[in-house]
Amino acid sequence: MAAAGPEIERLIALLAKLPGLGPRSARRAALALLKRREQLLLPLTEAMADAGARVRACQTCGALDTCDPCAVCSDGSRDGRLICVVEEVGALWALERGGSFRGRYHVLGGLLSALDGVGPEALRVEELIARVVDTDVREVILALPATVDGQTTAHYLADRLSGAANAISVTMLARGVPVGGELDWLDDGTIAQALRARRPA
Amino acid sequence: MAAAGPEIERLIALLAKLPGLGPRSARRAALALLKRREQLLLPLTEAMADAGARVRACQTCGALDTCDPCAVCSDGSRDGRLICVVEEVGALWALERGGSFRGRYHVLGGLLSALDGVGPEALRVEELIARVVDTDVREVILALPATVDGQTTAHYLADRLSGAANAISVTMLARGVPVGGELDWLDDGTIAQALRARRPA
Repeated sequence: MAAAGPEIERLIALLAKLPGLGPRSARRAALALLKRREQLLLPLTEAMADAGARVRACQTCGALDTCDPCAVCSDGSRDGRLICVVEEVGALWALERGGSFRGRYHVLGGLLSALDGVGPEALRVEELIARVVDTDVREVILALPATVDGQTTAHYLADRLSGAANAISVTMLARGVPVGGELDWLDDGTIAQALRARRPA
Repeated sequence: MAAAGPEIERLIALLAKLPGLGPRSARRAALALLKRREQLLLPLTEAMADAGARVRACQTCGALDTCDPCAVCSDGSRDGRLICVVEEVGALWALERGGSFRGRYHVLGGLLSALDGVGPEALRVEELIARVVDTDVREVILALPATVDGQTTAHYLADRLSGAANAISVTMLARGVPVGGELDWLDDGTIAQALRARRPA
């Protein structure tokens, strides 16, 4: 039988769809919401309604923001000749938290995947080519994950971009030992790449 | 600098207050909500607004429901002479999932705690005594966690109840509830066994 009424069961079922929440933790979350109605449930409901109504994908770069073009695309202090290509908005947020990148972004919306049958037409590839051709872009940084799909996508984009415009350079994030990385905990592939890409001390 | 706009940052900050979600998983949850607007964000927002507006604590037993008295208290097929006392609504849900209990409930709203300075007046103790005295209650099952505070509370309630009415028997869940175990985390079979093997306090 149902543990709670249909309204609460529906709330639990929807909360369980969030990444990181299973059926059990979704129940705990629902209970926390219902017990902390004023402090948590109502503000979160309002924040979600607000975000749902106002947050859109930027037509230019694909980032999520309430304005279109987004804050990054409309920021004149950023270098429009430098575009960083990311898989998803989450990677864009991670780079922004770093705060060291002052160019613009392009969100692909996924990676090429033979297994999942994801082709270039499913990603924002043509939009990227158009941006590079139409605007004065000098460099495209492919900040894609160091996975098979990530590298396949990077190679495909490198070919397309070099074919579309001669003047631009296509680069990738450096591979090597992460900050704070202990050598004896690193995988062989990372160590091998860090050795290959070694530079003067 | 902020990874995303203020609306998204606010959404992330509020999601991070849910049990089981940290700052990082809250970001993933916010991203999932914004990417799956129609399938997830809007339905969840509606479910939360609905629950927030309609779900209330039952005046009789303290359970959360859209009707007052709640579905359990107004269910004529349930044995009103049998009351199961639980710490929180989560424990009530766990017992209902077990499905072997056909009596009614009383949610204390917490446990006596000398450390946290929680006294009987902070719990729904008088409401329980009143229910036992006013209505034809034969047995009170103290389904409280097998923790120090849980057992302290159980002993206190056993004294109060036996002093308030002679005719009733006060029982506890059988051993089988692991020490330190929270009802909310127990499997249904264990809860059913503990209910069947309950013994005098």
